[in-house]
Amino acid sequence: MASPPQFLQFVDQNADKFIARLGEAVAIPSVSGDGTRRPDVFRMAAWLDSQLKSLGVTTKLVDLGKHVMDGQELPLPPAILGRIGDDPKKKTVLVYGHYDVQPANKSDGWDTEPFQLVVDEKTGRLIGRGSTDDKGPILGWLNVLEAHKSLGLDLPVNMRFCFEGMEENGSEGLDDLIKSEVAKGKDGWFDGVDCVCISDNYWLNSRTPCITYGLRGLVYFKLTVSGPTRDLHSGVFGRMVHEPMTDLVQLMSKLVASDGTILVPGVDDMVSIADAEEREIYEKLDYSVKDVEDAVGAPITLSDDKVSVIMGRMRMPSLSLHGIEGAFYGAGAKTVIPASVSGKFSIRIVPPQTPEKIEPLVVQYVQQEFAKLKSKNKLKIENLHDGRPWMADWKHWNYEAARRATEAIYKRSPDLTREGGSIPVTLTFAESLGVNVLLLPMGRGDDGAHSTNEKLDRSNFIEGSKLLGTYLYEVAAVKA
Amino acid sequence: MASPPQFLQFVDQNADKFIARLGEAVAIPSVSGDGTRRPDVFRMAAWLDSQLKSLGVTTKLVDLGKHVMDGQELPLPPAILGRIGDDPKKKTVLVYGHYDVQPANKSDGWDTEPFQLVVDEKTGRLIGRGSTDDKGPILGWLNVLEAHKSLGLDLPVNMRFCFEGMEENGSEGLDDLIKSEVAKGKDGWFDGVDCVCISDNYWLNSRTPCITYGLRGLVYFKLTVSGPTRDLHSGVFGRMVHEPMTDLVQLMSKLVASDGTILVPGVDDMVSIADAEEREIYEKLDYSVKDVEDAVGAPITLSDDKVSVIMGRMRMPSLSLHGIEGAFYGAGAKTVIPASVSGKFSIRIVPPQTPEKIEPLVVQYVQQEFAKLKSKNKLKIENLHDGRPWMADWKHWNYEAARRATEAIYKRSPDLTREGGSIPVTLTFAESLGVNVLLLPMGRGDDGAHSTNEKLDRSNFIEGSKLLGTYLYEVAAVKA
Repeated sequence: MASPPQFLQFVDQNADKFIARLGEAVAIPSVSGDGTRRPDVFRMAAWLDSQLKSLGVTTKLVDLGKHVMDGQELPLPPAILGRIGDDPKKKTVLVYGHYDVQPANKSDGWDTEPFQLVVDEKTGRLIGRGSTDDKGPILGWLNVLEAHKSLGLDLPVNMRFCFEGMEENGSEGLDDLIKSEVAKGKDGWFDGVDCVCISDNYWLNSRTPCITYGLRGLVYFKLTVSGPTRDLHSGVFGRMVHEPMTDLVQLMSKLVASDGTILVPGVDDMVSIADAEEREIYEKLDYSVKDVEDAVGAPITLSDDKVSVIMGRMRMPSLSLHGIEGAFYGAGAKTVIPASVSGKFSIRIVPPQTPEKIEPLVVQYVQQEFAKLKSKNKLKIENLHDGRPWMADWKHWNYEAARRATEAIYKRSPDLTREGGSIPVTLTFAESLGVNVLLLPMGRGDDGAHSTNEKLDRSNFIEGSKLLGTYLYEVAAVKA
Repeated sequence: MASPPQFLQFVDQNADKFIARLGEAVAIPSVSGDGTRRPDVFRMAAWLDSQLKSLGVTTKLVDLGKHVMDGQELPLPPAILGRIGDDPKKKTVLVYGHYDVQPANKSDGWDTEPFQLVVDEKTGRLIGRGSTDDKGPILGWLNVLEAHKSLGLDLPVNMRFCFEGMEENGSEGLDDLIKSEVAKGKDGWFDGVDCVCISDNYWLNSRTPCITYGLRGLVYFKLTVSGPTRDLHSGVFGRMVHEPMTDLVQLMSKLVASDGTILVPGVDDMVSIADAEEREIYEKLDYSVKDVEDAVGAPITLSDDKVSVIMGRMRMPSLSLHGIEGAFYGAGAKTVIPASVSGKFSIRIVPPQTPEKIEPLVVQYVQQEFAKLKSKNKLKIENLHDGRPWMADWKHWNYEAARRATEAIYKRSPDLTREGGSIPVTLTFAESLGVNVLLLPMGRGDDGAHSTNEKLDRSNFIEGSKLLGTYLYEVAAVKA
């Protein structure tokens, strides 16, 4: 069932208004990973709640309690549950999104203020932190609701919403909430949900829409090596004491090779080797080594073979070293021996890997390697957060609806992909609700989520809003 | 010749006033390594110049030109030259000090505001950035001048001063100034100087004063690995591209072992092995493994053998990894692949090592190791600054005067030491002026120069001021 033409027209006619609303959302620096920004995350929740209510959605803000971050106890941002429509003859679609964002400072290398949406008329880009991850997609749903309310159109399905403010920081508290709502049965918020739709990932490139049926999981580690009780002068103490940075760098160098091979024994081995049939799937995707080079701005792919490069993201685990907390990080030439340094790294995992299988391998290996150093410093290993990988049945009617909607809006078949990122809640929805979960991205592969100059193309925001609305009509029509 | 009793009394009676003046100096955050603080370095120069003038010193502020730091052109802080006394019958002592300081932020782990001098009555500590390195010693000289001016006493020697504002950042411009003043001969500011005294180092411990006849040199390197043109999301790009952090950590891990051994071929080998006679010198020093453990707050010495530990500082080169610029350094769990990362490390060098010998060894080795990685990322190696090591004749009358002064004030013989730190200008004075240079420290081994909670003990500030004054009288008396 196609979406009504007046819906599509309304989205086009109200594009500037929708972009202005995105600007309001981006202007709230709802960085969940920075304790000093926590009030802004709450402010963002209040803003979104008020938007939903004004569009006819019944909402409930759920207090998820408190958590400790970097030694400080902080209140968790609320989950926002919403519902609109209770027609037993209609299907019920649950929509998930997150209203928190990654940290961003202009000094990181942004060309513009990260928390001020800049509309670049020349390129058609909407630039700002959260534009594509994940405020743009959330606002896409608001656009759909606003169009129907303004036009006096009934929604073709019943909708449920679940928006959280901790996705970039481990989705703390959300799993418990979902499970407890499901446990309430008929009285639970998610009762009657037929399928889930999440728009929080990206096209493979900047040309071809995609729908996504797999995600990598994640285990995020913090390795702390501590020695002296305070920073030392390297002239006075250099070559007298075991230096924590020396030990930490030795340990971090044992984790991953320059070619991407994970050096922690047993991690890479856990994953099967792709057979010819599987390689063919990757071969068919509209994606090339050149696309990766364009997206990252340099010819630095690990391989010159397209399928190898794609498999690196879609079906292999990866280990990235993110940085070091506690060492000298500024400009200039400080001659310090830092007292305590924490290396941050994460492993993206794929089936059949789970955090439960990976964590002990890493802990044991790092401890063994540290013992080899014969250092008198102290080592501490923490798992900061984790999530399992996820795969869905892409032959389900939910995917069929998404395929049809994409073809209606973009006039082409979507690529069918697995993604390299992690949205742990995807798995929770799939397992707790026992329904099919679909990832239907709005943004492009070069949007720069988590990076400097994050953007969402104007066309992706507008056509993407149409896509989300049309998807609802296709869900209503498709044979379950 | 002992110093006059009224001088010693004056210092005691004016202790609080002297400490208040130190507070004024600490309150000016004259961080030479931070471009945003450059105006404060100039403010500090003006403050010091005005103090010197008010105490009868003729001064000249020398413009040292500009330099480029982290891509920004900045004016260099002026050198302050001073002179008081021109009696041809008296010896002439040149005093050097630096009025700039290391960076400091309360968030680095300071218990108090770093740029606010805190007098801890319980411990007798004067806490603040620059208290011991090197504002305290400079103010010690001011205290000596003030005592003589107030008491109407003639100084026993002619004095020359040379104070700079770039010591913590490579002493840029100073070498050229000294050489050009020396080249002026009779018309130069340093004409007639008989010896040099520098108070910019520390006792070995917190008990026994020392005088110092050797310093390590330094070569400070910045290794930059660059790949993508912007930071990347580790989910989207992990295991698709060569990650700069992976490469940089591999390179940094090849520089130094956990036991302090420098892994760059040829560096450690350049230094002779200590014979039994030399080992005996270190054996005699009032310094123990326990002292090092107390100073750093943890049992982390590289050896349990006192002499090995002492030699690590005094006669061996050291390599310290200071940190990484451009990587994630904050709290929390950011899943970023940083686009460009710069590892900072320095090598402290000892005779016969020189920067000219060390730099090519490091550059060649790092390039070789990088080639082994077969990475498509780019590598850049920079020498940010360097200085040669220095050794003086400790049987010279200048050292004899310092020994007698120490015995007069502290009632004990000083330890005779070589230091692990670097004061490149020491060598320039020795070579350009062709006179003996003495290091006469004011502070203790646990002062925490370059570290958090830097302090100078009140007793070291006050007795140290007496020591500096008494040293001048002993210089006047000793047979040249």
